[in-house]
Amino acid sequence: MNIPSKIVEQAVEEFSSLPSIGKRSALRFVLHLLKQDPGDIEDLSKAIMKLKDDIQYCTVCQNISDSTICAICSNPNRDKSLICVVEDVRDVMAIENTLQFKGVYHVLGGLISPMDGIGPNDIKIEELVQKINSNKINELIFALSPTMEGDTTNFYIYKKIEKLEITTSILSRGVAVGDELIYADELTLGNSIINRTPFEKSFQS
Amino acid sequence: MNIPSKIVEQAVEEFSSLPSIGKRSALRFVLHLLKQDPGDIEDLSKAIMKLKDDIQYCTVCQNISDSTICAICSNPNRDKSLICVVEDVRDVMAIENTLQFKGVYHVLGGLISPMDGIGPNDIKIEELVQKINSNKINELIFALSPTMEGDTTNFYIYKKIEKLEITTSILSRGVAVGDELIYADELTLGNSIINRTPFEKSFQS
Repeated sequence: MNIPSKIVEQAVEEFSSLPSIGKRSALRFVLHLLKQDPGDIEDLSKAIMKLKDDIQYCTVCQNISDSTICAICSNPNRDKSLICVVEDVRDVMAIENTLQFKGVYHVLGGLISPMDGIGPNDIKIEELVQKINSNKINELIFALSPTMEGDTTNFYIYKKIEKLEITTSILSRGVAVGDELIYADELTLGNSIINRTPFEKSFQS
Repeated sequence: MNIPSKIVEQAVEEFSSLPSIGKRSALRFVLHLLKQDPGDIEDLSKAIMKLKDDIQYCTVCQNISDSTICAICSNPNRDKSLICVVEDVRDVMAIENTLQFKGVYHVLGGLISPMDGIGPNDIKIEELVQKINSNKINELIFALSPTMEGDTTNFYIYKKIEKLEITTSILSRGVAVGDELIYADELTLGNSIINRTPFEKSFQS
């Protein structure tokens, strides 16, 4: 692309570093912005700068927060002895949306992935183990994605804490609600036969 | 979406005002940025701010530029008497990429579109008419999109200048190179029969 302005080119370059944004979309963003009020452009620029300057992470669960302790960890009605281990803040939001979980979270900030050069020390596993050691935790729920990286991370954490007196569980795996069986992959379908649920339980939730 | 941070929420709000970006993509951008070096976040913020502060428009053709006259208008090898009327800078880039045009451009900055509340005075038509009146222009090429808005704008400009001694032309319309005939719409296919090109011309370009 032959962009007639260095300033536009620079902005296109920056936007195209965002996930799944190519040069064409980036240019569309820039041309869109150029048509907006100067105030709107400034708002976007400042909102991004605030991400750098003002964002904090909850010192308890590592979730993104505007204060040192997030709203979930500081809520007295949440069960602090029940910890759900998740990859990032999107998973917290997804589980919160189900309204089915009354415990607290521990955000790892990633998954172990040797392919991407992410080892156990690059994510918040040590913090989790320390938390379990120094607090009364009853149950740990593994809620990582059912992928190779997720399972590797689950297993690594499990090995670190298996000697401690703590119940561990993992999200159930099976056919998705609303999906047609013929479209389920063999692994999922096989899993859902092996781990079949007592029928009475299926209409009790 | 229940975002646990006002700062993130604000940034998501701003990003989702970009074209074809929803809240989900915007959140992905924000979480991606939060994993980057502070310097990289600052670079994006500053590049956007520069769009507001430093961008200029060529005083001759209204194209986006880093100086008062753009590289095309200041190029002595370009034919200043041949003006190609386009909607925006992306069209300039697209036509420049063909390497088939040695004239100069006039960027309207939009198309007449009553549905969107854009009238003739909201785009750079008056500037074009003045340019034609006060300079020796031989030919005007209409290179707007072959849509209702494009055709309306073409016709409006044509009516404004039809009394002047100036050749007007329009990009040829027909079946796209590489497309299969059965997929061409009737209007395009019909047009390409009516405006068929002498066969000898088809292998001379």
